[in-house]
Amino acid sequence: MENYLQKVVEDKRSYIDKGTLPEYIPELQKARKDALGVSIVTIEGDTHHAGDYKYSFTIQSISKVISLMLALKDKGESYVFSRVGMEPTGDPFNSMVKLETVRPSKPFNPMINAGAIAVSSMIEGNSGEEKIKKLLDFFRKITHNPELEINEDVYLSEKRTGDRNRAMAYFMKDVGVITEDIEDSLDVYFRQCSIEVTTKDIAYIGAFLANNGVDIITGERVMEERFVKIAKTFMVTCGMYNGSGEFAINVGFPAKSGVGGGIMAAVPGKMGIGVVGPSLDEKGNSIAGLEILKDLSKNLDLSIF
Amino acid sequence: MENYLQKVVEDKRSYIDKGTLPEYIPELQKARKDALGVSIVTIEGDTHHAGDYKYSFTIQSISKVISLMLALKDKGESYVFSRVGMEPTGDPFNSMVKLETVRPSKPFNPMINAGAIAVSSMIEGNSGEEKIKKLLDFFRKITHNPELEINEDVYLSEKRTGDRNRAMAYFMKDVGVITEDIEDSLDVYFRQCSIEVTTKDIAYIGAFLANNGVDIITGERVMEERFVKIAKTFMVTCGMYNGSGEFAINVGFPAKSGVGGGIMAAVPGKMGIGVVGPSLDEKGNSIAGLEILKDLSKNLDLSIF
Amino acid sequence: MENYLQKVVEDKRSYIDKGTLPEYIPELQKARKDALGVSIVTIEGDTHHAGDYKYSFTIQSISKVISLMLALKDKGESYVFSRVGMEPTGDPFNSMVKLETVRPSKPFNPMINAGAIAVSSMIEGNSGEEKIKKLLDFFRKITHNPELEINEDVYLSEKRTGDRNRAMAYFMKDVGVITEDIEDSLDVYFRQCSIEVTTKDIAYIGAFLANNGVDIITGERVMEERFVKIAKTFMVTCGMYNGSGEFAINVGFPAKSGVGGGIMAAVPGKMGIGVVGPSLDEKGNSIAGLEILKDLSKNLDLSIF
Amino acid sequence: MENYLQKVVEDKRSYIDKGTLPEYIPELQKARKDALGVSIVTIEGDTHHAGDYKYSFTIQSISKVISLMLALKDKGESYVFSRVGMEPTGDPFNSMVKLETVRPSKPFNPMINAGAIAVSSMIEGNSGEEKIKKLLDFFRKITHNPELEINEDVYLSEKRTGDRNRAMAYFMKDVGVITEDIEDSLDVYFRQCSIEVTTKDIAYIGAFLANNGVDIITGERVMEERFVKIAKTFMVTCGMYNGSGEFAINVGFPAKSGVGGGIMAAVPGKMGIGVVGPSLDEKGNSIAGLEILKDLSKNLDLSIF
Repeated sequence: MENYLQKVVEDKRSYIDKGTLPEYIPELQKARKDALGVSIVTIEGDTHHAGDYKYSFTIQSISKVISLMLALKDKGESYVFSRVGMEPTGDPFNSMVKLETVRPSKPFNPMINAGAIAVSSMIEGNSGEEKIKKLLDFFRKITHNPELEINEDVYLSEKRTGDRNRAMAYFMKDVGVITEDIEDSLDVYFRQCSIEVTTKDIAYIGAFLANNGVDIITGERVMEERFVKIAKTFMVTCGMYNGSGEFAINVGFPAKSGVGGGIMAAVPGKMGIGVVGPSLDEKGNSIAGLEILKDLSKNLDLSIF
Repeated sequence: MENYLQKVVEDKRSYIDKGTLPEYIPELQKARKDALGVSIVTIEGDTHHAGDYKYSFTIQSISKVISLMLALKDKGESYVFSRVGMEPTGDPFNSMVKLETVRPSKPFNPMINAGAIAVSSMIEGNSGEEKIKKLLDFFRKITHNPELEINEDVYLSEKRTGDRNRAMAYFMKDVGVITEDIEDSLDVYFRQCSIEVTTKDIAYIGAFLANNGVDIITGERVMEERFVKIAKTFMVTCGMYNGSGEFAINVGFPAKSGVGGGIMAAVPGKMGIGVVGPSLDEKGNSIAGLEILKDLSKNLDLSIF
Repeated sequence: MENYLQKVVEDKRSYIDKGTLPEYIPELQKARKDALGVSIVTIEGDTHHAGDYKYSFTIQSISKVISLMLALKDKGESYVFSRVGMEPTGDPFNSMVKLETVRPSKPFNPMINAGAIAVSSMIEGNSGEEKIKKLLDFFRKITHNPELEINEDVYLSEKRTGDRNRAMAYFMKDVGVITEDIEDSLDVYFRQCSIEVTTKDIAYIGAFLANNGVDIITGERVMEERFVKIAKTFMVTCGMYNGSGEFAINVGFPAKSGVGGGIMAAVPGKMGIGVVGPSLDEKGNSIAGLEILKDLSKNLDLSIF
Repeated sequence: MENYLQKVVEDKRSYIDKGTLPEYIPELQKARKDALGVSIVTIEGDTHHAGDYKYSFTIQSISKVISLMLALKDKGESYVFSRVGMEPTGDPFNSMVKLETVRPSKPFNPMINAGAIAVSSMIEGNSGEEKIKKLLDFFRKITHNPELEINEDVYLSEKRTGDRNRAMAYFMKDVGVITEDIEDSLDVYFRQCSIEVTTKDIAYIGAFLANNGVDIITGERVMEERFVKIAKTFMVTCGMYNGSGEFAINVGFPAKSGVGGGIMAAVPGKMGIGVVGPSLDEKGNSIAGLEILKDLSKNLDLSIF
């Protein structure tokens, strides 16, 4: 397996030049554009790595999957989905148009920014600090990595340049989707996006999802199966921004990408996969990372369709 | 199995009253609103039926799945997807907004009307008649029902009241998505939607897809596996109109509905399912049929997530 | 006056190079890009000309003002405005988005293509031929030019490439805004746009409007004052495509432009102005023609604000 | 004149019941729904009043006209219009859609909320307090009413419930339209909207505009003629929310309404008119106030078209 993984990583390096680092979060411009790594964690607990799997990056939108499960656990399905929809949208991840034009006004799904901000505001806690602590503890548990931390520079960079997210949040406050304090809610969101991980960490998250919420090492049920399945479903229908449909066709398993260059995948009943490659395609997905997953899907026959 | 299916059908009859018959195609108003039936065809060839499985209805949008595979076979993936996208859209099935506002101008996917009309225009043939004959022959082959016919009354009703589809088609001609004659192309589309089927017929189509394009009876490869997988992927991401995301969460296998009241499902590697129930929910899906599929998914553990 | 006009025309020639001929109607590409002319007809009947005032061009969207008055006369205000709105729209002249997204579905005003097509369909007549004859007769009367004719080449070019207009028309048929035959209605519209005029002709139309519907030569009331005022109001709020607001600020009198390069203006109680200059700015207005009108407004103090 | 005005006010009272008080600013619900008054101030300085002309109300959107002139004076035309457009928009006054969908991203005009917030942020001043003091001083000068004050209850109510405006402001900060502090800018905007006036006050503003920026009493030039003309032009093309086009047709002179129930009109070269009637139509304009203006326009022949 390691040999195969190393070969794939080398093969796909050529795609790096075709992508770019994201411009709208200045701190992300400091990423190592040529990093490329992959980790696999099977539900039996086997791990395989190749390339820059020790390279650390911020988790960004991948965190939306985890905050969704926590909000579902805290507030229940009907509460969450009365405020955030279940449908894919053909609009960009930071679009506000449908908030205004579709009635009732609610974000289309928890994977676009508006939906994810609303979801994070639903996590129970007496303050933003409590909520983010809860989130971070949960991340540490499912990654089996007690040393996960928030990258303060990235967090501050996102907070400083987050006026588009701020606009969405106030709009949602206006229409009643968010009832919590806006700056607090945004703080939770910006911090959760700034958690620093490696491919190994996110491969563990993927394995946890692939195993339906039962810890693959301890056997403990950490999250309700139903909520894990919901999370995986959103990963298929809207996990890869506006490239979700194409990814479902060409790769065919649940995955969520982040603008930090990571992609976390969960192959149901089989394995978690983490890849990193900060050079992004125009839709915001790791350009070489996508190619690695395409190769894995084909060679290991991982499509669920 | 028959007992279970009969019980499910009876249990779900209560949902019929909560739905309505579609208004925009006058001929569909003549449907039997209280009909409710289900058929299962496993890839081993076992068949099970319950309720009004002999009730015949027009296939409507379910046909979009089949015309897509034929267009892919005739023109190839790159031709088709240069003119029709791969992404789900949060807009209604008959929306034209994104054709105008998103560049390049092309229908978001082959399951919305605009995309399906474009796809049907791509099927090779010297005339509309040839194309529709080819489509009908293919339907007969994969349903193992040589007696399938087009319901002329429904076809004429759709043609007469199809000005919204006509508007989309001319728009697509203007931007170069469709290069064929518009009235001819619409004729193929209106006719394919008017093919009359029973749940048994569409369950066979589902089994054919579940078996990746190999005829479950003869063992013949009838369609390339790749194209069948593409079809199933679209069924997951956009098969149930604006209820696709919710359906993926609550049912979790590829399915395509039509306003005739049918839903055709393909459980990969397992079975095809056909249900009918002309009473529709507000999104255009069979309201009681959805409940039957939800029950089947749960009780037979059919979710792919 | 002639000296002043000649000087203005010469001064503004330098703007011609900054514009382009329109691409979407092939026949219009044959226009003389460097033509530039102006005519003034006062309500007392004085006429002044300069530059290429004998250059003939097709009237295009300027005709929308006249067809609106005829439809108002034939069907009455309440009929017309129940099907076409009164409000400016920030969308392009050929946009369909608001037809779909705003309820009730009707074109925002009679100056965008959708509204103008609907309006032309409302002119009374037993056939398309009768309607266009009626329109042409009216044009001949108010221009005092019995030799006005339709340019058949331009008409056929518009008909052949008019699929976007065709799409709008079918959409409006679907929602009930248009009740007439679509191809007939489009034929009237394409023909009225193809009437060939000079600046003198459109200056006479402007004078007729400036004089509130009373023929400046014969003194005959040819059109109800109310309908003429309605026409002039639309010219101010939406006469210059997406540049109407800027034109109102910088020029400040009712005007309507066409992609043939003409602009017809009506200075209430004073004069009609016709300019031609086929080189268009990005909004579709004659680029040098606009500058001539800006100069006239300033030097002759013609703003109504 | 007084007799005529009194008769008009009485005649139009019957329209009051067809309208409602606005719901989105709680404090405005306390208005006297049945108030109805009118004031006229000619440019010669004659004044005429009828009905509840002593009733005080908050100026709301009428203030947008004045803040625009101040911003033009402070920053110049090219600065202002590089950040805010000149075109009418068919969208609601609080719409954000075009900010996202049209490039470059800027509010369509200074009369919709987004544009007005941006404009207020452009007024020179070292702090929000300085800016609002400057605005208030200017209002006092042109109304000849040194006692004008801000209604603190309304201001606080708007600030508390202003999340939609806040959303717009942050969006504009994100795209660079606003460079000032957001809460400060909103404070100026909410305060200017909360200035308490009577019909007499706004009739004086109207007369000031009608007189092209020269004080009708002192003869002092208080504002550049060009900026006053720009203001009047926007009043015609977008002064009455989504009813601007209809108002231009049926009334035909520059006017600006506010959800406090006021309408300020400027008949060029003739007079200013102020009306109040807190019962609003569905577009947000004083329902009985509109009828008064319609009557005045017809009987005094005030249309500019």
